[in-house]
Amino acid sequence: MLKISSLGAGNVAWHLTQNLEQKGCIIDEVYSRNLAHARMLAQQLGHATATDSLDFWASEADLFILAVTDDALEEVIRSMKVSPSAILVHTSGSQSMGVFDALPNPHGVFYPLQTFSKNKPIDFSEVPFCLEASDEDTFALLYQMATVLSTKVYTVDSEQRKKLHLAAVFACNFSNHLMALAEVILHRENLDFDMLRPLIKETMEKALSIKPQEAQTGPAYRNDRQIMEAHIRLLAGHPFEQEIYRLISQSISAMYP
Amino acid sequence: MLKISSLGAGNVAWHLTQNLEQKGCIIDEVYSRNLAHARMLAQQLGHATATDSLDFWASEADLFILAVTDDALEEVIRSMKVSPSAILVHTSGSQSMGVFDALPNPHGVFYPLQTFSKNKPIDFSEVPFCLEASDEDTFALLYQMATVLSTKVYTVDSEQRKKLHLAAVFACNFSNHLMALAEVILHRENLDFDMLRPLIKETMEKALSIKPQEAQTGPAYRNDRQIMEAHIRLLAGHPFEQEIYRLISQSISAMYP
Repeated sequence: MLKISSLGAGNVAWHLTQNLEQKGCIIDEVYSRNLAHARMLAQQLGHATATDSLDFWASEADLFILAVTDDALEEVIRSMKVSPSAILVHTSGSQSMGVFDALPNPHGVFYPLQTFSKNKPIDFSEVPFCLEASDEDTFALLYQMATVLSTKVYTVDSEQRKKLHLAAVFACNFSNHLMALAEVILHRENLDFDMLRPLIKETMEKALSIKPQEAQTGPAYRNDRQIMEAHIRLLAGHPFEQEIYRLISQSISAMYP
Repeated sequence: MLKISSLGAGNVAWHLTQNLEQKGCIIDEVYSRNLAHARMLAQQLGHATATDSLDFWASEADLFILAVTDDALEEVIRSMKVSPSAILVHTSGSQSMGVFDALPNPHGVFYPLQTFSKNKPIDFSEVPFCLEASDEDTFALLYQMATVLSTKVYTVDSEQRKKLHLAAVFACNFSNHLMALAEVILHRENLDFDMLRPLIKETMEKALSIKPQEAQTGPAYRNDRQIMEAHIRLLAGHPFEQEIYRLISQSISAMYP
């Protein structure tokens, strides 16, 4: 039975450890620099002790999952005391596997490509897991663990994972911001954002079923200059929104010349 | 029983007429400047004749729905011959009600805020209808017709409707383009766009449940300059993508100072 220590008690650790436990893994320890956070997650688990110490010399864990913020990752790796035979993995989209190079331990990346909130359950069987490892045995272990959780398991090296994370920023963070700007525009007119709900839902469904490049519509796609100029005028006094309107319209025109 | 003529046989007319007929309206005529298109839609309907003539002097229709492209709308209004008592409405998000001002007819706007494709059925009960009319009687008729089709009926004047359309461009056309750019970035790395599917789905569900301004995450939201600079470097050789990355990150930072 695989014994696991979770370093981190945030959103990723919260869901990952509980799902791993449901699949028969033993979560042995939960570390957080905030002990109260570690305790909160440990209480959700069957056998875990909470700690705010990075001294794992006495730990029985086979695998350490570092699910800490990108900022904290290097510092945690530098500070942790751990048997050189323990396997270390992180869960970050944007950190390369090379962050573990200073340690002799077998290591890897176990990156779930999903956004997590503590209070919202996630269907893990649909979460894509992106795996990378320093050696075949470690890869085999991570692969086994990932396939127990999910039907979508990918081998992704550090360079690809960075591009994947970058693509996710465009597809998710940035598209969310454009919805936020729509919310702002509607708010100025006392119109309810909910009016856009069915249209947004349909847009996403189309983008996911026929792919976004095929699904593109709108004034810039049709090269309807009259509407685009009218829209820019409607945004007078809001230079960011005007600039975004212009730039994205140009980018759409460039994609469909 | 309301008798309706549809001017236009495109995606909006296609769904609107069939749904109106199911609710007991009679679609009398379908006009398209391409007679084959008019016939194709007329065949889907119980009682409609197809025509490519804009001479409706002899028409028995009470209501003419102009569901033509924005470009064609003014020309159709100028060219159509119709009894001055017939009610005329258009279905456009971006054209003001004033396009009908040259005619003596009662008129209005019957704008379904949704994107339509011929081969994909739409649940009309969820489609927001935005109504505007030249007089109370016309408004009452449009309101009755809209509430028969949908539970979401709004009174929206021409200025508001233009802003609504603009907001829809941001929330749907532009966010789709950012997903398209993500697709391009992944394609360059031989990565499958489907990897982003669960993340996109979750992003959209969060944006719709807690509103996009509340749901924002990502490097720009966290002001993580290291990641942002790394991302700009990863986009070297792709100036549009770099510029979009910079501008939207700035706009996110401005929204969450």
